[in-house]
Amino acid sequence: VRELVLLNHIYLANAQLDAATVVIPPGDDMGCVRIGSQEVLVTVDQIVDGVHFNLAATRLEKIARKAITRNLSDVAAMAAIPVAAVAAALLPRDLGQDRAEALFDAMRATANDYRCPLIGGDIGIYAGPLVLTVTIIARPGPVAPARRSGATPGQGIFVTGVLGGSLLTYQGHTHHLDFEPRLAVALRLAELLGETGIFRGAMIDLSDGLATDLGHICTASNVTAELWPHCLPISPALAGDRLPGAPGAWQHALTDGEDYELCFTAAVEAMEGLTSLEGVPVTHVGTILPPRSGPTISLKWPDGRVEPLTARGWEHHSS
Amino acid sequence: VRELVLLNHIYLANAQLDAATVVIPPGDDMGCVRIGSQEVLVTVDQIVDGVHFNLAATRLEKIARKAITRNLSDVAAMAAIPVAAVAAALLPRDLGQDRAEALFDAMRATANDYRCPLIGGDIGIYAGPLVLTVTIIARPGPVAPARRSGATPGQGIFVTGVLGGSLLTYQGHTHHLDFEPRLAVALRLAELLGETGIFRGAMIDLSDGLATDLGHICTASNVTAELWPHCLPISPALAGDRLPGAPGAWQHALTDGEDYELCFTAAVEAMEGLTSLEGVPVTHVGTILPPRSGPTISLKWPDGRVEPLTARGWEHHSS
Repeated sequence: VRELVLLNHIYLANAQLDAATVVIPPGDDMGCVRIGSQEVLVTVDQIVDGVHFNLAATRLEKIARKAITRNLSDVAAMAAIPVAAVAAALLPRDLGQDRAEALFDAMRATANDYRCPLIGGDIGIYAGPLVLTVTIIARPGPVAPARRSGATPGQGIFVTGVLGGSLLTYQGHTHHLDFEPRLAVALRLAELLGETGIFRGAMIDLSDGLATDLGHICTASNVTAELWPHCLPISPALAGDRLPGAPGAWQHALTDGEDYELCFTAAVEAMEGLTSLEGVPVTHVGTILPPRSGPTISLKWPDGRVEPLTARGWEHHSS
Repeated sequence: VRELVLLNHIYLANAQLDAATVVIPPGDDMGCVRIGSQEVLVTVDQIVDGVHFNLAATRLEKIARKAITRNLSDVAAMAAIPVAAVAAALLPRDLGQDRAEALFDAMRATANDYRCPLIGGDIGIYAGPLVLTVTIIARPGPVAPARRSGATPGQGIFVTGVLGGSLLTYQGHTHHLDFEPRLAVALRLAELLGETGIFRGAMIDLSDGLATDLGHICTASNVTAELWPHCLPISPALAGDRLPGAPGAWQHALTDGEDYELCFTAAVEAMEGLTSLEGVPVTHVGTILPPRSGPTISLKWPDGRVEPLTARGWEHHSS
């Protein structure tokens, strides 16, 4: 099964949805429906032992935390505010009662930390790997939800934090487990970029690597992009001799998955002089260009050389 | 891992939840939160190949349908109205593109049939059994959501439809795949039993068998119950020689899982003379009694004999 082909097949049916109810159909970081006068956003994400974490090598609390924070990263990408969560778990028969309870305690604690209480769930016990599936519902922040489709030519491309090496452990920190979902940064951005109720730009969270996820913005917005590889904020986990024989760190920053940072586009003037928000670095890494034939994303080097981006981000789950 | 022990551990923490936001905490058929002035209900349920269906022996459309309708049965149990769904799927690597697309097409078609559009999802491809996890959000119906805690002594106990034998195929119908979630019946009940905005009774959907699920109502309501086994509406799938050597059909009706009917309690006068609602049989099968020491549920036979119910419903997933 090829995930992207399946997703495109699914999105084809979006046109059938009733636009009066469905404010945001499948294909963004969250869907959104109208209930009475209230807009409600929803996202679901699952993590599986052997794919997204290694049960044998990871503290249960970290796994439980990731199940929640991965979804919160999607909430941040919409500049929305989490409201509540439900969690479904498939537990291997031999997990043990104490560990099962610790898992739920840690999911609940993480959810409470982000004021997103767990209000329901489902438990299955079976002969398979541990699976945690979390759904979060959210409400819009200060402006309408930020969409992938909001990019326009001339806008700058920005990323939060540092990129790449998310699976590596560096100074006791393993980013794909310990990352902080960028909820506060996103709400500040909504205030900065929001105008007459609308988020002036596009936003996505980086789960599959900047190259892939910026590609989603380009597709949804019908634009192309120029990235400046020498400007990418490189994770210290990628520094020095940690990757002997590996390609340049910038390639990792461009294609490694699970950064859980935000990529957004905005008028360059609106971001003038801003190098951080809420204590998180914000880096200008490229420019949105008009649609054109040829590659969706090109790389522009300091010497003026431009080349198409061919290496795509790590394709989540399909490896 | 024992599911009930784990659930009780989880519910212990409900007291910590902020009652201003969390209208219904974990432990009912759906949770409920307040967003602005709107109450929003949420439920999640997962089905797994080898536990809830047999991929090799079942049409994909039926599996996809069940993933949606199981959740809709929870919506019915709250007398709520479905609004939207999200679906997470873990697909075995060898499922094939066509079958993966057919699966999502069928989930979408079922969701649309019930005016509960799929607005998002997550896809994982892995070396494990097919898992479909569906979350549905809903809004309250004509009165506040029906709760498990609404039973009071003196009320009658009623069930919709017929019970037992859900896994058997009879005249081309396999109930656990083909059942109709009782959404319309539940809304009619809310009108019948609703008074000053409140559902006067308790309600639950029958997923683990009447004995177990009525037990949940008793626990949540702090009452006990007397059931009349000879009054249980028996599924025709259980009739005659289909179960040679099996215990009485009434025992199946009492303990078989996956009926996806409603069990509710109501003032007997309010239900006087009603034998069906929206074309679905409604049967009076017992009485709610005050709390007492001893068994939560007892069986009362026509000759006046009373015995404790010891056989419990089929414990979902743990077999």
